[in-house]
Amino acid sequence: MKRRIGILTSGGDCPGLNAAIRGVARASYEMFDCEIVGIHDGYRGLIEGDTQEMERSQFSGILTLGGTILGTSRTPFRNMRKIEDDHVDKVEAMKKTYKNLKLDCLVTLGGNGTHKTANLLSEEGLNVIGLPKTIDNDLYGTDFTFGFHTAMDIATDVIDRIHTTAASHGRVMVIEIMGNKAGWLTLYSGVAGGADVILIPEIPYRIEEVAKVVERRARNNKGFTIIAVAEGAMNKEEAKMKKKEREANRAATHYSASADVAQQLRDMVGVEARAVVPGHIQRGGSPSAYDRVLSTQFGVHAAELIRDEIFGVTVALKGNQITHNKLKDIAGVPKLVPLDDQMVTIAKDMGISFGEKD
Amino acid sequence: MKRRIGILTSGGDCPGLNAAIRGVARASYEMFDCEIVGIHDGYRGLIEGDTQEMERSQFSGILTLGGTILGTSRTPFRNMRKIEDDHVDKVEAMKKTYKNLKLDCLVTLGGNGTHKTANLLSEEGLNVIGLPKTIDNDLYGTDFTFGFHTAMDIATDVIDRIHTTAASHGRVMVIEIMGNKAGWLTLYSGVAGGADVILIPEIPYRIEEVAKVVERRARNNKGFTIIAVAEGAMNKEEAKMKKKEREANRAATHYSASADVAQQLRDMVGVEARAVVPGHIQRGGSPSAYDRVLSTQFGVHAAELIRDEIFGVTVALKGNQITHNKLKDIAGVPKLVPLDDQMVTIAKDMGISFGEKD
Amino acid sequence: MKRRIGILTSGGDCPGLNAAIRGVARASYEMFDCEIVGIHDGYRGLIEGDTQEMERSQFSGILTLGGTILGTSRTPFRNMRKIEDDHVDKVEAMKKTYKNLKLDCLVTLGGNGTHKTANLLSEEGLNVIGLPKTIDNDLYGTDFTFGFHTAMDIATDVIDRIHTTAASHGRVMVIEIMGNKAGWLTLYSGVAGGADVILIPEIPYRIEEVAKVVERRARNNKGFTIIAVAEGAMNKEEAKMKKKEREANRAATHYSASADVAQQLRDMVGVEARAVVPGHIQRGGSPSAYDRVLSTQFGVHAAELIRDEIFGVTVALKGNQITHNKLKDIAGVPKLVPLDDQMVTIAKDMGISFGEKD
Amino acid sequence: MKRRIGILTSGGDCPGLNAAIRGVARASYEMFDCEIVGIHDGYRGLIEGDTQEMERSQFSGILTLGGTILGTSRTPFRNMRKIEDDHVDKVEAMKKTYKNLKLDCLVTLGGNGTHKTANLLSEEGLNVIGLPKTIDNDLYGTDFTFGFHTAMDIATDVIDRIHTTAASHGRVMVIEIMGNKAGWLTLYSGVAGGADVILIPEIPYRIEEVAKVVERRARNNKGFTIIAVAEGAMNKEEAKMKKKEREANRAATHYSASADVAQQLRDMVGVEARAVVPGHIQRGGSPSAYDRVLSTQFGVHAAELIRDEIFGVTVALKGNQITHNKLKDIAGVPKLVPLDDQMVTIAKDMGISFGEKD
Repeated sequence: MKRRIGILTSGGDCPGLNAAIRGVARASYEMFDCEIVGIHDGYRGLIEGDTQEMERSQFSGILTLGGTILGTSRTPFRNMRKIEDDHVDKVEAMKKTYKNLKLDCLVTLGGNGTHKTANLLSEEGLNVIGLPKTIDNDLYGTDFTFGFHTAMDIATDVIDRIHTTAASHGRVMVIEIMGNKAGWLTLYSGVAGGADVILIPEIPYRIEEVAKVVERRARNNKGFTIIAVAEGAMNKEEAKMKKKEREANRAATHYSASADVAQQLRDMVGVEARAVVPGHIQRGGSPSAYDRVLSTQFGVHAAELIRDEIFGVTVALKGNQITHNKLKDIAGVPKLVPLDDQMVTIAKDMGISFGEKD
Repeated sequence: MKRRIGILTSGGDCPGLNAAIRGVARASYEMFDCEIVGIHDGYRGLIEGDTQEMERSQFSGILTLGGTILGTSRTPFRNMRKIEDDHVDKVEAMKKTYKNLKLDCLVTLGGNGTHKTANLLSEEGLNVIGLPKTIDNDLYGTDFTFGFHTAMDIATDVIDRIHTTAASHGRVMVIEIMGNKAGWLTLYSGVAGGADVILIPEIPYRIEEVAKVVERRARNNKGFTIIAVAEGAMNKEEAKMKKKEREANRAATHYSASADVAQQLRDMVGVEARAVVPGHIQRGGSPSAYDRVLSTQFGVHAAELIRDEIFGVTVALKGNQITHNKLKDIAGVPKLVPLDDQMVTIAKDMGISFGEKD
Repeated sequence: MKRRIGILTSGGDCPGLNAAIRGVARASYEMFDCEIVGIHDGYRGLIEGDTQEMERSQFSGILTLGGTILGTSRTPFRNMRKIEDDHVDKVEAMKKTYKNLKLDCLVTLGGNGTHKTANLLSEEGLNVIGLPKTIDNDLYGTDFTFGFHTAMDIATDVIDRIHTTAASHGRVMVIEIMGNKAGWLTLYSGVAGGADVILIPEIPYRIEEVAKVVERRARNNKGFTIIAVAEGAMNKEEAKMKKKEREANRAATHYSASADVAQQLRDMVGVEARAVVPGHIQRGGSPSAYDRVLSTQFGVHAAELIRDEIFGVTVALKGNQITHNKLKDIAGVPKLVPLDDQMVTIAKDMGISFGEKD
Repeated sequence: MKRRIGILTSGGDCPGLNAAIRGVARASYEMFDCEIVGIHDGYRGLIEGDTQEMERSQFSGILTLGGTILGTSRTPFRNMRKIEDDHVDKVEAMKKTYKNLKLDCLVTLGGNGTHKTANLLSEEGLNVIGLPKTIDNDLYGTDFTFGFHTAMDIATDVIDRIHTTAASHGRVMVIEIMGNKAGWLTLYSGVAGGADVILIPEIPYRIEEVAKVVERRARNNKGFTIIAVAEGAMNKEEAKMKKKEREANRAATHYSASADVAQQLRDMVGVEARAVVPGHIQRGGSPSAYDRVLSTQFGVHAAELIRDEIFGVTVALKGNQITHNKLKDIAGVPKLVPLDDQMVTIAKDMGISFGEKD
């Protein structure tokens, strides 16, 4: 029996997408008779029927390649709870393409938004398998998503380079790490880069406490301070606002978490403080060795699931094991840093400040 | 109560040793009153009383530094089962130094050999805490040791660079990865580097099967083949020998696994095959972001154990959690790649050969 | 005869400073009897007498270290032409420190500002030797300054990573490279990173021409465009303004060259265009192999000049030779990209646009 | 007038080949009407008529790619002086292919061997342009060849990593750098990596002098020594032999310069000394930023020469300028490190030993 497999990548691009695609393809070709259809630019291609029949050779030589050979686009439905006409049309369009292509299953690589849509399609009766990618590591049910470790390498390298300037000039450097809702990337790269202060969305900070760290270090003849701040970090006041209000405020002022922290420290302590926003470089380029392994494992496991006809699931890492969760159990559940996360405790035990009151 | 902590690093050097030392020190200074004694060159320093009182500032700025600021040496006792006079003397000498230094506990960073001695000292009544480092990842009871991920990055980079030459010249390249007993590093970097064949000590290979891969690729117009071979990989014939005999043979012929495989493929298939032995570069240099995180977590957890007066244990990673095992449960137990390891299955499912009969 | 050598590093930090310091020190210790005095934080330390007697061991192990072990600060005199009382006082203070320290010569590592002050001190009778460092490569009389190649490596790596996202999402990405007056870094890293458009201060651009490139690429099914823009790039209108006016405008609007270009392309072509500002990471971290060689050569040549009692000069690279120029000939002369620079011609010949009319 | 351009890459592969190919192609397509023919595996493809018509899109996305998209093989004529029948046949075959393909010119990318053949073909009346690539930097008439800087980066990274182990274990580490005849790569990476001893083919060494360095460092409490040795380095005795005899000796004993030096130091000084042979990784992988710039410049200049109908030349770097030399002036002239090379003097002035008598 020949199986026809559709593959798409959706959401922001992320290192390891091609490695995962290659894993799905190589293992499928190896284990059973199959044809693979590439769907362009995520769900857009599925809606519009923009696809191509792939050949085996197209999956060769892409292990180390950044980005995605299939193209990507952001999730088509911003709000899953409100079922609109337009929405229904899109779902129908996707089902129609799936049917027209005579697909036996659909493999979707993406983050939280992608998984919501994947679950929706699964509920509509399509055979869907998800693969969790995102540099934010904020997907429920998996220890790590692919892309996260590469982003950690890049963000850590940024902190390393900034360290040099901070120490030579005796400055406060505030480095803004990607992560609007989840602080994982800031937490891990902050620890890896030897940050003195780590500010994440899950733990609202007081700028006075950050200022104290700067002053204490100055008293101990450490003339510089490294602060890793997540894009979505907020102070106590902001944290009290309603989400909509906060987001509206931020949009109106072109808010930057790092610029804000740097400005406040200049005003409050009178130090030279600079913001650095590495931005998109955190999600681009060739995947790290670890992410190539994880992406490959995820991709091959997806092929094993196709072989075994297990659908409506997403692949996951638990401990050292590759496994899978039901889409309906994890779709729409973000994974934030718990306040009692062991990594947070460890960071505090070694004197890293989260900008909380002592 | 002031606690006096001795620290030593033993066995081959490995990325993350200084990051782990820093973790122990920073968290100890932060959490309780303490003094830290650095013991030079592993157990040699403990035997001979070659030590120094450390200052807090000495643990600053070493997070990214390769090697170990304390120096290291190989394990003092090659054979733990044979209790010799000399051996007893050494144990007594170590106990004496511990007593003379008025230590409250001893933190030992090392691999299997180091842990055997740590357990011995623990049984003799010293307060010992182990930290598992080794690029081989062959310590029982922990998902990963620190140093492994950095070595994987380096070995993968080596394979990447060799890939280029292999493809341009249409050659078979045989890359020898560190690992005498355990194939973890070869397995992970082989998958990360896109190797076509992976040969590890745990799975004896048949050169005929490796030759088949080379020939099959040639037929499919892939003019090159990448083979990742562990130092300790052996063919079926060697695997049948007694260990002593095999080792004697290898020593006598300056045996190199990669040179052997390359030579046999030249003879058998008539291809151009080259061996590459990156050697010591796999264990040197600055730790990767992941290894800095893991080393720091291990180090801080050791300090937490000192605070809580839990001794006779070694720190471990299980899933996403940092925890600890009893020294007596893990000392002397190597962790090899199980034949049914999921990673092996995954590699096979995507068509990677381990040189076994189909 | 023992020689007392003062060393200071001034201006923005830059990879290779420590390698150059080590070169001066190692060669001096090797070639003649000497004592070295480290002057803290550039000219500030010389003005205030903030210095330390160095030991030989302090110059060991710093070859690969980013930043400067001596600290740095910005040039003390912003405007060399206006001799103020304050200025005179500072020069007198520096001469006094030089005399008090009984220095035989002063080695100053820095960029254009540093060299102006070095020349001033030389004219006042001090024995001064300059070493040209800056990531901007804008010092007259030398083919390259140290720091430039490392910054090129970093900026190119940034473009590589952004390339991935640009291609996967089909976006215009505008990457802002350091360089307020000189476009060398943008020119070299733009070519190395495969940019489609390069905008530098020396060649005012028309946004219409940039838009044409984006549109032409879209017509040729290249859905993305990479634009490398120097911080100081300006369009034709800005270029006509007086410098003061332009700078005032930019300061008032928190001007960012990349944000401006991205905004205009969004408005004009209707594409998705994003700005990336890697910022300070371009000047931090360990020097590249080339910069270590160049820094070492410069440092050793400075020691050779001290040995030969040649002062009032700055070290330079011409072709493959290390040589030196008179301070008075190069101080205050910036090196900009000539309009007929061969590298510009080469870039144009391969179709890279500088935003000029065809 | 449409021009038909043949391109081939010959000799060992080397970072920057694809960047140079892209430079030739992009600039040719941009500047004049042209067709490009890719010749497979160097001169072999020209002899056998193994070629392909290229499309413009095939030159896209290859700037950062290691190796060569055209494949390569070693030079067809080992001995240029002896004109054999076979040789004549090969030349005739190449001329015939050139004619059959209706080529207007041939661009050959390679090292010394490639340039000899290029010159031969030029003398036979073909329109030939050479591009100097080699990691050895041993081509006469150009300051640098492309590939050299990337190899320097890799070799320096190797020394950095080995440094760590050397320092932690207190060992002598002997690192073997590529270069059979020319010591450029060992010289530059040795200085960049902070080697204590540099041994190159051009300066025969005395092992006693190397031993003295190890002993002197031990006396000064530097427990380790880093020795960078070129593959082709030889001691005084070997240097006196005839070349043939020396090569026969080496082949018979599987000679390795690093193993030999390490063995002799173990015997002579009684230290722990280890050899490291990074081998092929020095020539693989993505080109560095500098090499991408140089390769691109070389490639574009070749296209400019085609435009201007200047043939029988090879592209070169002199100082900061891209220029060209006549093939007949440079073919067969190797560029070795002169004994009075400034870089050698600089290295000696800072105390680096070349194993010569003081």
